[in-house]
Amino acid sequence: MKDKVLKLMSERQITVEKIAELVFALQSKYYPDLTMDLCLDAVDTVLGKRDVQHAVLTGLALDMAAEQGHLPAVLADIIRRDESLYGIDEVLGMAITNIYGTIGVTGFGYLDKTKIGLVGELDESREQVNTFADDLVAAIAAAAAAKLAHGAKREENDEKSSLLGHI
Amino acid sequence: MKDKVLKLMSERQITVEKIAELVFALQSKYYPDLTMDLCLDAVDTVLGKRDVQHAVLTGLALDMAAEQGHLPAVLADIIRRDESLYGIDEVLGMAITNIYGTIGVTGFGYLDKTKIGLVGELDESREQVNTFADDLVAAIAAAAAAKLAHGAKREENDEKSSLLGHI
Amino acid sequence: MKDKVLKLMSERQITVEKIAELVFALQSKYYPDLTMDLCLDAVDTVLGKRDVQHAVLTGLALDMAAEQGHLPAVLADIIRRDESLYGIDEVLGMAITNIYGTIGVTGFGYLDKTKIGLVGELDESREQVNTFADDLVAAIAAAAAAKLAHGAKREENDEKSSLLGHI
Amino acid sequence: MKDKVLKLMSERQITVEKIAELVFALQSKYYPDLTMDLCLDAVDTVLGKRDVQHAVLTGLALDMAAEQGHLPAVLADIIRRDESLYGIDEVLGMAITNIYGTIGVTGFGYLDKTKIGLVGELDESREQVNTFADDLVAAIAAAAAAKLAHGAKREENDEKSSLLGHI
Repeated sequence: MKDKVLKLMSERQITVEKIAELVFALQSKYYPDLTMDLCLDAVDTVLGKRDVQHAVLTGLALDMAAEQGHLPAVLADIIRRDESLYGIDEVLGMAITNIYGTIGVTGFGYLDKTKIGLVGELDESREQVNTFADDLVAAIAAAAAAKLAHGAKREENDEKSSLLGHI
Repeated sequence: MKDKVLKLMSERQITVEKIAELVFALQSKYYPDLTMDLCLDAVDTVLGKRDVQHAVLTGLALDMAAEQGHLPAVLADIIRRDESLYGIDEVLGMAITNIYGTIGVTGFGYLDKTKIGLVGELDESREQVNTFADDLVAAIAAAAAAKLAHGAKREENDEKSSLLGHI
Repeated sequence: MKDKVLKLMSERQITVEKIAELVFALQSKYYPDLTMDLCLDAVDTVLGKRDVQHAVLTGLALDMAAEQGHLPAVLADIIRRDESLYGIDEVLGMAITNIYGTIGVTGFGYLDKTKIGLVGELDESREQVNTFADDLVAAIAAAAAAKLAHGAKREENDEKSSLLGHI
Repeated sequence: MKDKVLKLMSERQITVEKIAELVFALQSKYYPDLTMDLCLDAVDTVLGKRDVQHAVLTGLALDMAAEQGHLPAVLADIIRRDESLYGIDEVLGMAITNIYGTIGVTGFGYLDKTKIGLVGELDESREQVNTFADDLVAAIAAAAAAKLAHGAKREENDEKSSLLGHI
């Protein structure tokens, strides 16, 4: 299924590389050794999770159905205008970030508000409906950043586990 | 917008009365004075919330788009089969229950698992796709039950607020 | 840290075996080949996750602090009485189930409502405060059940992946 | 209970005024007519919600118990160091923002990451443990901002409801 998700993402102008750039922006100040390759790997791992694939497929399908008039008019109108009180796009985003624990929510909210990189490009694009797309991208990047943080901590712990406290 | 949501629900065989019966089933053992009228009122209040309306519209629209072939094939197939690992229906359900705090999640999970009343009817129906519909109904009922619990407690507190502890 | 979590759980009368029995109760009707060993393994894996450990430590610490009078009186009173509108125990429970996607919420709500097995034992015990303990146990069992469901599906897919649909 | 919550907050250097300043910072660019009085009212309404009070009490009690050594050592250590992978503070924060729908998560994540105003003051303070305090403040501000957005939209809709689409 991952191939189909990546293909659909690419048809909606979403690339793994641009998501990895957001991960780098989120995490580079905490991890001076961070490379783009590590960010690409993390995004790839996140996109391998079934729950992430389900959320991405569902969100992009809603953007496309809104474009094509395949939704009840009242909903199509809300999604096409990216109505500010419509929160189902954030709901799908959090379903993605939650998989790597709740620390991802910070990065998600930050990207969703500052709209840097691909999140802003999608938000501003007038060529297609991106109401879900920008939140999905922010959430994948935030989940990948959370995954990197978990991994970095694990290595650190392996080195100094004897120093940890005890009950 | 509420009228449009109620109309769409009724086209999908979902009535406020049948949801109120679920609320009664969830709460009657805790509140001996509970009436169907109170349950109907609570469901009506829940359906007046914009976030609930957004979740209901989105979920029912996905069921309908899956029926009509208006989704990418891989997603339409998942939704039509009500694939057991697809969790976006539960995600929308929790977006509804969360509005009345987290106590609603218990009732939601219970209805989703036991499939009593309208939840079971929708789950078993072969006439239409109800992958989202049964979870939305369970979530609305659970949210209305949580609302009733909050209201009952408030009255109780008004009577005995002088007995409460203090920091 | 896992050892410390297991030790603390055991001091609060929570054993991996009793949680595994709940997993078996949740999943045996869907998977006829399910064994207690598989359930034990799944619980063990869930308890190996750092986010789960954090939630368990925090919840049990709150139960203990409420017992020992180490909380502001207004909060200690709420937790000691297991006040029905206090939802932070459910909040921690959902933080656990979310790690295996949202399908776990159903099992969590079901166990929390029906209170079978260890969940009921903890809920009824008058020897210690278990306001968080019963929800944590229900959530760990539901997360382990979700993990088993994901694993079972993966094997199934390996066998018939050529039959899957495509975009 | 609200009075006790406000008193506890003030003992932890958290004031309604400083939270209202964060609300103003989040929302002033969208609503040119926004005043500090409206922000103060919104914070006050958020703090009147029982679920918010429960989350605030629980989080501040954990900060205080960590300070006073009233937690299992492994947890006290994590909370005192504000260990970056500990996500229960974000979990409580989201329990607050969810009450006004999911649009609040954006503001929460943004404040949690940028640490402006009181969020940053609490995060940097070395006089007390504020692992939960900064997230609670960010969440209350984000919830109040979401409440204002809902209210603003309602007025707007009253004026132009005849322009809305229909199913």
